[in-house]
Amino acid sequence: MAPLDFAAEWQRKKEQVEAALERYLPPEDAYPPLIHRAMRYSVLAGGKRLRPVLVLAAAEAVGGEAERVLPAACALEVLHTYTLVHDDLPAMDNDDLRRGRPTSHRVFGEAAAILAGDALLTLAFKLLTLCATEKGLPAAAVVRAIDEVADLAGSSGLIGGQVVDTLTTPDEMDGATLEYVHRHKTGALYRAAVRTGAILGGASEGELRALTAYADHLGLAFQIVDDILDVEGRTEVLGKTAGSDRRNRKQTYPVLYGLAAARERAAALGAQAVASLQDFGPRGAFLCGVVDFVLRREF
Amino acid sequence: MAPLDFAAEWQRKKEQVEAALERYLPPEDAYPPLIHRAMRYSVLAGGKRLRPVLVLAAAEAVGGEAERVLPAACALEVLHTYTLVHDDLPAMDNDDLRRGRPTSHRVFGEAAAILAGDALLTLAFKLLTLCATEKGLPAAAVVRAIDEVADLAGSSGLIGGQVVDTLTTPDEMDGATLEYVHRHKTGALYRAAVRTGAILGGASEGELRALTAYADHLGLAFQIVDDILDVEGRTEVLGKTAGSDRRNRKQTYPVLYGLAAARERAAALGAQAVASLQDFGPRGAFLCGVVDFVLRREF
Repeated sequence: MAPLDFAAEWQRKKEQVEAALERYLPPEDAYPPLIHRAMRYSVLAGGKRLRPVLVLAAAEAVGGEAERVLPAACALEVLHTYTLVHDDLPAMDNDDLRRGRPTSHRVFGEAAAILAGDALLTLAFKLLTLCATEKGLPAAAVVRAIDEVADLAGSSGLIGGQVVDTLTTPDEMDGATLEYVHRHKTGALYRAAVRTGAILGGASEGELRALTAYADHLGLAFQIVDDILDVEGRTEVLGKTAGSDRRNRKQTYPVLYGLAAARERAAALGAQAVASLQDFGPRGAFLCGVVDFVLRREF
Repeated sequence: MAPLDFAAEWQRKKEQVEAALERYLPPEDAYPPLIHRAMRYSVLAGGKRLRPVLVLAAAEAVGGEAERVLPAACALEVLHTYTLVHDDLPAMDNDDLRRGRPTSHRVFGEAAAILAGDALLTLAFKLLTLCATEKGLPAAAVVRAIDEVADLAGSSGLIGGQVVDTLTTPDEMDGATLEYVHRHKTGALYRAAVRTGAILGGASEGELRALTAYADHLGLAFQIVDDILDVEGRTEVLGKTAGSDRRNRKQTYPVLYGLAAARERAAALGAQAVASLQDFGPRGAFLCGVVDFVLRREF
């Protein structure tokens, strides 16, 4: 096996996802065009595509084919995008900038942004079914993936994290609550991405456990780096407004523990994520590379 | 076969749905409680439960068991409720009253209402998977049902109707546009309810075609009656604010065509719905009764 060229492989997977998103999103002129323009605007605005790449990589790590889980990869990206569109709404974080462009509600209005988020969430589940109907994966595995995605994205998962994040005042936010928010608001979709890829790729229960540990460590590391970047990063590079956590008096890892401790925690979590992959050998190489990518990223 | 006591059978099915909703909704004290209180508040506020009853009835009409499609019935009600919660938001219809109680955003705030709607939409797909994982129906049928529900509830279905309804000015709303809105905003979920019940109940393609025609006629009849009730009904009986269409200068069937023509159209659609059931014989009796119920309803 040739040594992994991580950057090239990353780029290849990202382009595979981008091309599939372009194909799976309804065309802009489909009636009614406003909603389809809004959906495409937010999904095709770029972004790191970390979650969909993780779906492909997790499937391959257990011997599955990336091509056959491509609709699921797109589902996770579309799901992630809906959370951004709704989080940015005036009633929530009231953000103006996302992925380097004005947020959906600034461009299309609040009603259209709410509906575009709803439509993306709905489309995510449609895309998951395509793994069975278009790609021929076993229907039972697809049902299991949908079941898990719905749980992890639901009121006890991602949305639970968002609720606590939105409605906890800075004074009430302690370390335990912050970790709950991170593990749910961000972590749940990392877990969903990795488990969906693994389940559809045909993972054994042992592989699934190891990959779940990987996803949980990676997701928390990602969010801590996100918090650090909000302090240290520049708006032009981030594509979203730097320093918004401080302005919103938001409690984050760097605020609660200081930058040095936050960096240490992220590195330790990264090491734990890599350790979770020990039984995968060379098949885990790309997922190890993702840890490095997440820790070093600048946006 | 004993002649059908429609009222008793309706009541029985409605209670079956209510008990299942109570069971399938996360408990109020599940963390974080605010979102679960908001979800339960809107779903358990009563309502006619027409869509879930149609899921049960369609399954039975093709020889399936109501008990095994019960999670799907709840899914359709939960999905319907999410649309109400989001439609009532200040950025959309800005309604204060729904099912006889203050709307979700009036009680829990706008952010919580947006998130509760998102959580209900997500839960709907989870519930559909339970037909396989809990009730043992074939995974392939469940995947097909999820596929169809996602299409019918998505940007070219229900949400498409909502977009056109929300963003068309009264002067732009002509007969064709109004029919588009009705067929999508309301009709899509009737079609989804009936087709989901039929698919999971094991319908033949011929039965599915007949039931789809039934659902489409019934859905449009329902919406026209809704428009008539907004003119003629009283807020106390409706459980939502009567006359809101007129105040919002909303174009409706009665406004565009007059009350008498609207009543005639609803009756004609009802007759077409009943005619679609001709090959079902006694097994179609309950669904015929639903047509009558929809035409005569006062709320």
